[in-house]
Amino acid sequence: ALAAPALAQGALPEIRWRCASSFPKSLDTIYGAGEHVARRVAALTDNKFQIRVFAAGEIVPGLAVADAVQNNTVEAAHTASYYFVGKDPPFAFDGAMPFGLNMRQINAWLQAGGGREVLQEFFAGYGLVSIPAGNTGAQMGGWFRKEIKTVADLNGLKFRVGGFAGNVLQKLGVVPQQIAGGDIYPALEKGTIDAAEWIGPYDDEKLGFNRVAPYYYYPGWWEGSLNLSFYVNKAKWEELPQLYKDALESACRDSTIETMAKYDVQNPPALRRLVASGTQLRAFPREVMQACYRATFELYEETAAKNPAFKKVYDHWRAFRDVQYQWFRVAESTFDNFAYFMHAQEQQRR
Amino acid sequence: ALAAPALAQGALPEIRWRCASSFPKSLDTIYGAGEHVARRVAALTDNKFQIRVFAAGEIVPGLAVADAVQNNTVEAAHTASYYFVGKDPPFAFDGAMPFGLNMRQINAWLQAGGGREVLQEFFAGYGLVSIPAGNTGAQMGGWFRKEIKTVADLNGLKFRVGGFAGNVLQKLGVVPQQIAGGDIYPALEKGTIDAAEWIGPYDDEKLGFNRVAPYYYYPGWWEGSLNLSFYVNKAKWEELPQLYKDALESACRDSTIETMAKYDVQNPPALRRLVASGTQLRAFPREVMQACYRATFELYEETAAKNPAFKKVYDHWRAFRDVQYQWFRVAESTFDNFAYFMHAQEQQRR
Repeated sequence: ALAAPALAQGALPEIRWRCASSFPKSLDTIYGAGEHVARRVAALTDNKFQIRVFAAGEIVPGLAVADAVQNNTVEAAHTASYYFVGKDPPFAFDGAMPFGLNMRQINAWLQAGGGREVLQEFFAGYGLVSIPAGNTGAQMGGWFRKEIKTVADLNGLKFRVGGFAGNVLQKLGVVPQQIAGGDIYPALEKGTIDAAEWIGPYDDEKLGFNRVAPYYYYPGWWEGSLNLSFYVNKAKWEELPQLYKDALESACRDSTIETMAKYDVQNPPALRRLVASGTQLRAFPREVMQACYRATFELYEETAAKNPAFKKVYDHWRAFRDVQYQWFRVAESTFDNFAYFMHAQEQQRR
Repeated sequence: ALAAPALAQGALPEIRWRCASSFPKSLDTIYGAGEHVARRVAALTDNKFQIRVFAAGEIVPGLAVADAVQNNTVEAAHTASYYFVGKDPPFAFDGAMPFGLNMRQINAWLQAGGGREVLQEFFAGYGLVSIPAGNTGAQMGGWFRKEIKTVADLNGLKFRVGGFAGNVLQKLGVVPQQIAGGDIYPALEKGTIDAAEWIGPYDDEKLGFNRVAPYYYYPGWWEGSLNLSFYVNKAKWEELPQLYKDALESACRDSTIETMAKYDVQNPPALRRLVASGTQLRAFPREVMQACYRATFELYEETAAKNPAFKKVYDHWRAFRDVQYQWFRVAESTFDNFAYFMHAQEQQRR
């Protein structure tokens, strides 16, 4: 027999939460992913469970949201978990790892591959529950004032890049810079920095980097996809009625579908406009990619040797990645590569 | 001001729907996608909106579900729209088109690229509303008793393959066969047919094709992804309270996340088991792929010339595909290909 409907009993409480986003409103898609969650939760609970989203800095600084949720300053946050790699390296697995998982693969790992369960224990130590809520897909490698032709060109390069990617690139002579979004343009214009990575064409275009750095590199090998996370204070999560937990989980999944679709629709025309404005599109040279790949796995091994929590997640993640890569090389990537090749030929003939 | 909560007013009705699936219960992931929708809808409406899912043939034959929903024999169905390409070719755009869109791309087209709006008009003509609800990813090319080395090897080949792919292959001499899932194995064993495509490793393994056909080809170029659809009788849809519409929409998106994750987790170990059992994995030769690609676009042009409804959707779809392919060749596929290449090298060294 079914349990008596809780709503019919009037048993479900009115709940008001505040959600601190790590993103400014100007990044309408990634910030919008948090608002999408809030909107769906309200719609699914007849407005009884309301989450108000605040942009980065409105009530909590963008990079302080994990602490704010842990301390129950706010009940929730919408963020990218790799922002907290400095707090504790395993956070990064929940967001993006260099040469890691693409959107399909991280979705598989988190939603059905045991990744979320492995991370759950880690997050519980910080009093957090993390729910996947949005994805950017593969990001771009960023804007460079000069071309990168060899690994030697990385030496001394002042590159605005964060997290693990910064640590990897340090091994190759890069001087990683931490600069907030709004300060990148003047730094790049004056030459205080030589290069900066941000997100992808749609978001990058808004900050106008094409006017001060001619070379736009790909791929952002440190973000083959970026999983976005909806953090909830663990005690607050446990207090939620089951219907609200279900609504929040479904709203977060809904948000992944929505955000990924929006980025995939918005990025292509933005890239066209950038190229039309004179932006030079460049692939990182293979030699550079290979050096970065080797440095990445050196860093992973070093970090795993020092940090048992990292090692635990890393072992699970890496075994999953092994199996996924083998599979994706078969039907998925053969289909994509052949279709793109034929299409490129057609475009040349037009 | 917010509208007064409808649930609190007791204004929301108890609704019971029947949903006819096109899939048997033995295909637990694809059939499960429909059940996932039903389960989420119930959870999100405090069990007031209940959908009971019936397997193919229980109340409606698997390939008759579109008619059954149109006639209101059942309120809903869970299906693959290309099953109805014989009824009217534009149905196929909602499922999969040969050399069409991968999972990310069809999600983008339907959810944010205007595809759903274009198809909505078409579906309305059949009294249907179609909501994306699940995806299989890129499928395999099927099981062959003999190797395919040249286009000439397709001549006279009796291949169990349906829809547009069958029509494309007919141009190259294939004799397409329509055979229900359960009848494929004996036909392949006896040599009544030479080859059969089904889904991917996880589902194919269950039917035991590896015991009667040694060669397992990839990719299934006719299904770079298969979008699954939740059909609702249009009049019944319009009668739903807004909260139930929202619950159904979110549940369907939730189901896409769930189903895609499950297939991506289940397929790799199934493929390993098949290869361990002696299955010979083969890529379709490039010459064969190219001939199929050309025949596909000939067929599209011929169909568009005869069917204005097809042309309308095709023009939208093809323009979207152009833009998506250009974009996916940049960051997304460069990331994937490089990472897979490095990984394959590592695996060889182990």
